[in-house]
This record gives sequence, structure tokens and C-alpha cells, in this order.
Amino acid sequence: MEKEAIVLRYSKRLFRDYRIDTHCGLVARAFGARKIIFTKEDAGLKKSLDKVTEKFGGPFETIFREDWKNALKELKTQGFYITHLTAFGIPFQKKIPEIRNKTKLLVLIGSEKVPREFFELSDCNVSVTLQPHSEVAALAVFLHEFFEGSELEKKFLNARKEIIPQEKGRKTAKLA
Amino acid sequence: MEKEAIVLRYSKRLFRDYRIDTHCGLVARAFGARKIIFTKEDAGLKKSLDKVTEKFGGPFETIFREDWKNALKELKTQGFYITHLTAFGIPFQKKIPEIRNKTKLLVLIGSEKVPREFFELSDCNVSVTLQPHSEVAALAVFLHEFFEGSELEKKFLNARKEIIPQEKGRKTAKLA
Repeated sequence: MEKEAIVLRYSKRLFRDYRIDTHCGLVARAFGARKIIFTKEDAGLKKSLDKVTEKFGGPFETIFREDWKNALKELKTQGFYITHLTAFGIPFQKKIPEIRNKTKLLVLIGSEKVPREFFELSDCNVSVTLQPHSEVAALAVFLHEFFEGSELEKKFLNARKEIIPQEKGRKTAKLA
Repeated sequence: MEKEAIVLRYSKRLFRDYRIDTHCGLVARAFGARKIIFTKEDAGLKKSLDKVTEKFGGPFETIFREDWKNALKELKTQGFYITHLTAFGIPFQKKIPEIRNKTKLLVLIGSEKVPREFFELSDCNVSVTLQPHSEVAALAVFLHEFFEGSELEKKFLNARKEIIPQEKGRKTAKLA
């Protein structure tokens, strides 16, 4: 059975978080998640992410749920296993063998401060290194470990453009 | 012999890049690099990163080299193997078995546009997924693969504070 991942990003709509939100969305898509949920509506953010999906393929969806607690409970009811990435959690390398067996994964990522429900409603609080760093990085490493590298071979559908790997320089190809 | 990694981040001193630069620095430190070199002086950035090192330990150094081409050549002379992370390169999973054997690694990361010398002066141009995403994420996944997870067990020295992993909630301890 194919594994499915969704990311929920607690966003605070601070100007300084805008690019980090974009990076979270791009990383979710590139590392095999099928959807990212942000907790604050932001039309520009959705536009940026949808543009990448239109160009480089999907499926990948960006949605907003200000009622994120409901979203979380709905996904739990649908059988999603909820993992919260936090510098304060149990080192992920101890938990990942178990988490890899889940077929439906919801990954919660916050920023410096997250609501206490992130800790309480999640099935598991894990850290990617016990150091302060970046939710973007934590998400990438965690999805990479969850999908065990298979995300690197993912075929994106309905792409208009693709990158052709080169030893030096940049090459892309137009599709269909 | 212990492996050593340094990161060189091509920064453009755009306001919008400031937090991404900070994330690059924090990720470099958390994933086992001993130094990050930025190409544009920024006292605030250095202060933020040094503060984390003072609190959570090191060694980790943040320096600036506007003459980054010289820095790059010096490191090459010192035996550093230069890997440029770019969405346009060869998938890293094909190159990493060889790169893991290097004991001195310089990782170049750019932003949307990088100077062509990044492609030309590097020993190897590799991509972490062939999708547009985030230099922060690419750096984390690449260092994680270079150090083969050993970075997750790294002991940081002279820390004043450390995180105590918890199933739920946040706990830190003051050290010496």
C-alpha cells in the first residue's frame, strides 16, 4: 500500500514568516507530501505554491484551515498518525522505525511558539536533532526518512517543465 | 579520521533572505558543520548565530568573505572537496557513496540565482530532489546523508543549556 503524508504548518501571518512558509510548502511537495495545510489564509502564498505545482507537476494541494483543531481531529478520525516535529521531542531516529509502518501520516510543524495542543493532540512528539534550527529542515529530513528515499524517485504528474540533471549548468525541458 | 564540513552560503543581502540565511546557519551547525561562510557581511546575522552557539554549544563559527572566490580556492588548496547543491545537478543519491569518503567537505548553497563559478569551481553539482524547494532543506538532507546520521548524536561542547527530550512538552537543563 502506498504511503500518504500531509503537512500542517502553524503559521502566524508575520511578515518575516512568509518566505519560511513558502519553503515549508515547497519542501512538503518536493519530499512527497500530497497536501499542506496552513492555519492562516494567505492568497499570495497559495498562488506561489500552486504555480510551482502547475509548472513542475503534482498532485499537490495548498489549503487553509483557521479551524486547524478541527482539521486535525478530522484527519485523526480518517486514520492519520499525527507526528509533531519539535526540538523538544524524542529523537526521531528512535521512533522512525515505528512511524515508517504508518500508511497515513500527518506532520505538524510550528515556528518558535506553537499552541500546546500540538503536543497534546499528536500521537508522537519527535525532534530532528535536539538543537534549535529550522522547521523547513526538520520537515525535509523527516519526510526523507519516512519515505526512506523513495520520494527522491517520485514522478510528478501533469508537469509542464522538468529539470534534466547536468554535471555543470542548468537544463530544463518543456513537456507536452 | 573524523569528517569535517564547512558551508558557504551565497547571500544577496536582500531583506527577504535574512531569515533564510539564519536558518542556513542554524542547520549547518545542527547537522554537524563546523563553520558557515556568508558572502555578505551582516553583523545581526552573526550575532544571532553566535548566540545559539554560546547557549547550546559548539564549536561553530560564522564568518564573512566578500572575496568568496578566494575563500573557495583556499579551501580547495587545503583539500576540501567542493559540492554545490543545486536543483539542476546530478541526483545526490548517485554521488553520495563517493562523497561520503571525503574527509573535508565544502558545501556551496545559493539562492535562486548563483554565480556561474559555483557550477565551475565545484568538484560536483548535485541536486536534492530535482524539484524547486529550499536551500535550507537541501543542506540538511545532504549533511544528514554525508554524516550518515552520526550528526544526530553529536555532542556539542561548552553548552550552557541543553534540551531534555520529552514525550510531551518542553524541558531544558542549565549546564555548569
